[in-house]
Amino acid sequence: TKHVLADYFGTELVMHQDIADKIKAWFESRNVPFHEVNRLQAMLPRDCTVLPNPLGTASGMWFERPSGQVVVSMPGVPYEMEGLMMSEVLPRLRSHFKLPTTLYETIVTAGIGESSLAALVSDWESALPSKGVSLAYLPSPGQVKVRIGVQGPAEDRKSLAHLLEAEAQAFVDLAYDHVIGRGDSGLPEAVLNMLKKRGETLCTAESCTGGQIAAMLTAVPGASASMWGGVVAYDNRVKQDLLGVSAENLAKHGSVSECVVKAMARGARMRLGTDWALATSGVAGPSGGTAAKPVGLVWMAVAGPEGEMAWCHRFGSQRERIVQRASRRILTHLHEAMREGPRRVG
Amino acid sequence: TKHVLADYFGTELVMHQDIADKIKAWFESRNVPFHEVNRLQAMLPRDCTVLPNPLGTASGMWFERPSGQVVVSMPGVPYEMEGLMMSEVLPRLRSHFKLPTTLYETIVTAGIGESSLAALVSDWESALPSKGVSLAYLPSPGQVKVRIGVQGPAEDRKSLAHLLEAEAQAFVDLAYDHVIGRGDSGLPEAVLNMLKKRGETLCTAESCTGGQIAAMLTAVPGASASMWGGVVAYDNRVKQDLLGVSAENLAKHGSVSECVVKAMARGARMRLGTDWALATSGVAGPSGGTAAKPVGLVWMAVAGPEGEMAWCHRFGSQRERIVQRASRRILTHLHEAMREGPRRVG
Repeated sequence: TKHVLADYFGTELVMHQDIADKIKAWFESRNVPFHEVNRLQAMLPRDCTVLPNPLGTASGMWFERPSGQVVVSMPGVPYEMEGLMMSEVLPRLRSHFKLPTTLYETIVTAGIGESSLAALVSDWESALPSKGVSLAYLPSPGQVKVRIGVQGPAEDRKSLAHLLEAEAQAFVDLAYDHVIGRGDSGLPEAVLNMLKKRGETLCTAESCTGGQIAAMLTAVPGASASMWGGVVAYDNRVKQDLLGVSAENLAKHGSVSECVVKAMARGARMRLGTDWALATSGVAGPSGGTAAKPVGLVWMAVAGPEGEMAWCHRFGSQRERIVQRASRRILTHLHEAMREGPRRVG
Repeated sequence: TKHVLADYFGTELVMHQDIADKIKAWFESRNVPFHEVNRLQAMLPRDCTVLPNPLGTASGMWFERPSGQVVVSMPGVPYEMEGLMMSEVLPRLRSHFKLPTTLYETIVTAGIGESSLAALVSDWESALPSKGVSLAYLPSPGQVKVRIGVQGPAEDRKSLAHLLEAEAQAFVDLAYDHVIGRGDSGLPEAVLNMLKKRGETLCTAESCTGGQIAAMLTAVPGASASMWGGVVAYDNRVKQDLLGVSAENLAKHGSVSECVVKAMARGARMRLGTDWALATSGVAGPSGGTAAKPVGLVWMAVAGPEGEMAWCHRFGSQRERIVQRASRRILTHLHEAMREGPRRVG
């Protein structure tokens, strides 16, 4: 790529020693052997602004044409490209061009499908275009984000922000029961924030979700303040030995049952000593389904200071989506339980 | 979309009652209210082949032009599009057009970076183009897949397959120490397959990876045959109470240490009663790093029939990638440990 770019912009490749040093340091910090081919990554066009890559060894290149056009070349590794876009390219583009202001607000809902949500807010939504407000539904398994956008000249920024906030609030009022957060905050963030505000702790007891709920929660920086841990009780022996589910109930009701999932949540809460515990047990498939307990059927329970509650859901037939949707749904139930609890918070 | 397509192909939209019935049944099976707007999804062009969507309610459309060209419209939800592509579109395209045969073989490596791997096999790789063989490196955190491809007329299928197998074997011989599987099988599949062959079981004790290893393993259908479960020991109390790590060692060495990670693996193996146990403890960041134990430093241990082994790795600075790469790396260590063990298998 860089040879083509150097040709196209009438310049030549030269060694950028400062970049070569950075690349060498990058390899050394990882204890990875530094090859000559890696040093060649610092051979870059003379007449361009080299954009240092904070996450890897391939630099970005910023070319300006006499006409004022800007051409940017970025590394191909997706997360490196994303990092460079955020750290270098977007700030430079913003200062280089006079762009119209676009403001967005994202609101996260859970436990309701896209079409039911759209039906709920349809009157509000149909009035938006005449106000110059755009709306996008961003669905993912078990969660629908709604992105509200306004656009206008930079000098109108203040009134645009007011309009955006008013419309966001209108949406929240209409869909209050399903709203779990604003901004980039997803369900795990919303749950962890609420726990932190309440000064309470959480653990998990996962059978069919196999660690996914714990992984979602601990993916959030700072999760350790409220999330103490959990048990992946995939085999029934683990349900008995670590969570104290009785062999009798496992034999009588089966591991996918209200009785067992409540016992799992209760056992995890007691043995890990947290305020709340979540438990799942279901049929993730592709095998193991029966007429009474088909693939996609998941029992889930929340144990809290006031006891246990359980729910039974059906989540389609695809293993990966069953696990994802069950993990999201149980966080929705916990969120509701905390919102309805005696120490209700805003 | 469908209005535009109907216009473009000179046809009109009509109600396809069979599709409407299917959509209604789909909603009913999920206990989701069926709206009139959902029934409208069965209004589809008269002169096209409607492709039933096994995973959702938006049908695909297959148009054939007099010139022999084919235009296919598919639902936008990615996993639905993928399902329809596999179930309907690809088989129809294959029977509609006479296509050259392309054969691929994918080999999965782990624990080695893309450029080191390329250096290892460079002589072999440079001879491939002259034989009409293509090669692609498909890197992801902690794992590099190598895809070897051959292409030719359908009648040469047999000799193409021989060529492909010979080149795949040549690659495996060169990179043997890093190869963990063939085909779509990733690390979790490779580890679970090896456990199953040996008739052995596994559990996890995760601190910094927070359930990700268990989630990766249990994402594989049939994982329950060998994977019994695990403990997410995010808080030190859980490391003590559920895994039996001593308060003394936690205080003396810190939770991110060889001593603690070995004790976690040993404790999990004993308490869950499995043949093997994996444990991780590290600094996933963004906060919590020190000069001695910076963000990205992860201790990991494998406990097995012959005792425990531990390793210390550095995995960059991004929380999500640290967790991903640590999870992959420990599975590589387990894979190696099993391959080197007394009951070595092929």
